[in-house]
Amino acid sequence: MQAVTLDAYGGSVSVKQYPVPKPGPGHVLVRMAASPINPSDLAFLRGTYRHRKPLPAIPGIEGSGTVVAVGSGFYPRVLLGRRVACSSLPGAGGGTWAEYMATSTRLCVPLRKHITLEQGAMMLVNPLTALAFLEIARRGKHSAVVNTAAASALGRMMVRLGLQHRIPIVSVVRRKDHVDLIHALGGTHALDSSQPDFLVQLRTLTHRLNATLLLDAVTGSLTNQLLEAAPAGSTVVVYGSLSGEACRIDPRALINGDKRVAGFYLADWLARKNPLQILQITRQVQRLLGTGLQTVVQRRLPLATAQQAIDLYQDASSAGKVLLVMDPHAVRVDT
Amino acid sequence: MQAVTLDAYGGSVSVKQYPVPKPGPGHVLVRMAASPINPSDLAFLRGTYRHRKPLPAIPGIEGSGTVVAVGSGFYPRVLLGRRVACSSLPGAGGGTWAEYMATSTRLCVPLRKHITLEQGAMMLVNPLTALAFLEIARRGKHSAVVNTAAASALGRMMVRLGLQHRIPIVSVVRRKDHVDLIHALGGTHALDSSQPDFLVQLRTLTHRLNATLLLDAVTGSLTNQLLEAAPAGSTVVVYGSLSGEACRIDPRALINGDKRVAGFYLADWLARKNPLQILQITRQVQRLLGTGLQTVVQRRLPLATAQQAIDLYQDASSAGKVLLVMDPHAVRVDT
Repeated sequence: MQAVTLDAYGGSVSVKQYPVPKPGPGHVLVRMAASPINPSDLAFLRGTYRHRKPLPAIPGIEGSGTVVAVGSGFYPRVLLGRRVACSSLPGAGGGTWAEYMATSTRLCVPLRKHITLEQGAMMLVNPLTALAFLEIARRGKHSAVVNTAAASALGRMMVRLGLQHRIPIVSVVRRKDHVDLIHALGGTHALDSSQPDFLVQLRTLTHRLNATLLLDAVTGSLTNQLLEAAPAGSTVVVYGSLSGEACRIDPRALINGDKRVAGFYLADWLARKNPLQILQITRQVQRLLGTGLQTVVQRRLPLATAQQAIDLYQDASSAGKVLLVMDPHAVRVDT
Repeated sequence: MQAVTLDAYGGSVSVKQYPVPKPGPGHVLVRMAASPINPSDLAFLRGTYRHRKPLPAIPGIEGSGTVVAVGSGFYPRVLLGRRVACSSLPGAGGGTWAEYMATSTRLCVPLRKHITLEQGAMMLVNPLTALAFLEIARRGKHSAVVNTAAASALGRMMVRLGLQHRIPIVSVVRRKDHVDLIHALGGTHALDSSQPDFLVQLRTLTHRLNATLLLDAVTGSLTNQLLEAAPAGSTVVVYGSLSGEACRIDPRALINGDKRVAGFYLADWLARKNPLQILQITRQVQRLLGTGLQTVVQRRLPLATAQQAIDLYQDASSAGKVLLVMDPHAVRVDT
């Protein structure tokens, strides 16, 4: 089979021939249809993602496809022939940027009829994270939420979910045209962090809306800015590090006003759910995929052009997802 | 009256003549007996404490004395003639390093008969913080606690309270003789952060004891070291910044293992208590002052030598408290 391969963290990728993997007990073999490039994939390529794999490795964290072979076990047999959204095993085994991937049934979600393989390919990472944030906001009784890097696919979902669930979302973006993008989605609160009065505006807005949950995908100096601008009792949740920098936090920003900084990792959040809750969450995701949890795709490119696809996404990540397509019959591909 | 005066943040102090203040409604005038120099006072002198005051100002956050005049109100009249532990108003008014201080009755705790004015002078800041940490450990169901700068007055209280309440305390200190000091108090877990294997030892011990509450009085690089060494789900509570440095936190230390960093400020913790709870806490403090919440005094110096007292405390803060004494009849003074 063809698969993308990474030889060195921080290096570029190429496409190579691999043997088709064999699914072990409790595992399935998925003939991949499509897989997106997410910020977490870029972190994996740089070597800064939570899970590293022995190199050379096949990257790719989520995707979709059809289960074409199964290892031993009841649930693998149930999935045989089914279309699934799937995620690669963390820390070991091949990723989704391949024609075939073997993975655990625990990392597969059968797709309902109305969900296309293209939608299914982007169903796990961002939509589940958006639902997790919504749950954290509700459980913590937060009146409003600040999100950063908010022109991202996840950022747009947060705006739409906020409108659906009447939770004000403050979208922090880095460019004027991204402010317009948030407004076009119906978001009322968009702040451009490149403006000189950004911090004053952020402070005013967080206090007016009592926005005590602040989602930080950027880190570096932004973490402290969020903390200082936020009302007393606020929580900053770090879920990514697009700046690649450490959080620099003035101790007074924590001590004055009883604030805190926490980390978020989707797999940990999911690990605290029981099977019934997981079922409810994946149903909710599939119900909302066409509306609140929709993802805009800017380009669909074949596996062979993986490095080009990565470059394209890095240059214009807020223009929409770049999708790697392994099965052009199932998913329309740009030429 | 004589009082210590600070003319510029970061500068030295001198002793000047002031008029004796007049207590307003709900306030009392305390003829001060003694007042300690605490790390929070040093932060105030540097200008980095939570509350700054217009300069020149009289420093001093806690102390003890006798109520000799009162403003209008029922509770002020109740306190007239009583010996009290007292704290200065935050952000305004004179501090405790004076012969007299006017303050709110809310910041006064009547002393029980068996408590000396010397003990009462050091009854609020450290003992209440130690009890707060004990409560946080219990409420959060933390099996064990790591404390830093642990040779401090507060650090010693934590060791003794930990023994009384059977909560293992890991004391992080910076010198070999401080390890001996912790052992002499009965503490079993003392780590010297100047040793090359400190981080390995910290990680081993936190995981073995499941120490998921880590109290950080230092910040700088230590915050991240505590986070990384701690078991999954841990909380680092920042309550001081002896290094004077920002917390530098690798986002992965937060994201990997669902950890968090929170701030602690005693007045905020107390503000969440109702009057009955406050009464119970101040009773508990007075009951434990002779045992778990005991403070070692290294020197007792007159108000006129305030700068010398500050220098002495800064040079050897772990040798015990330096106490400023305004009433040599009530408190024995070194000559």
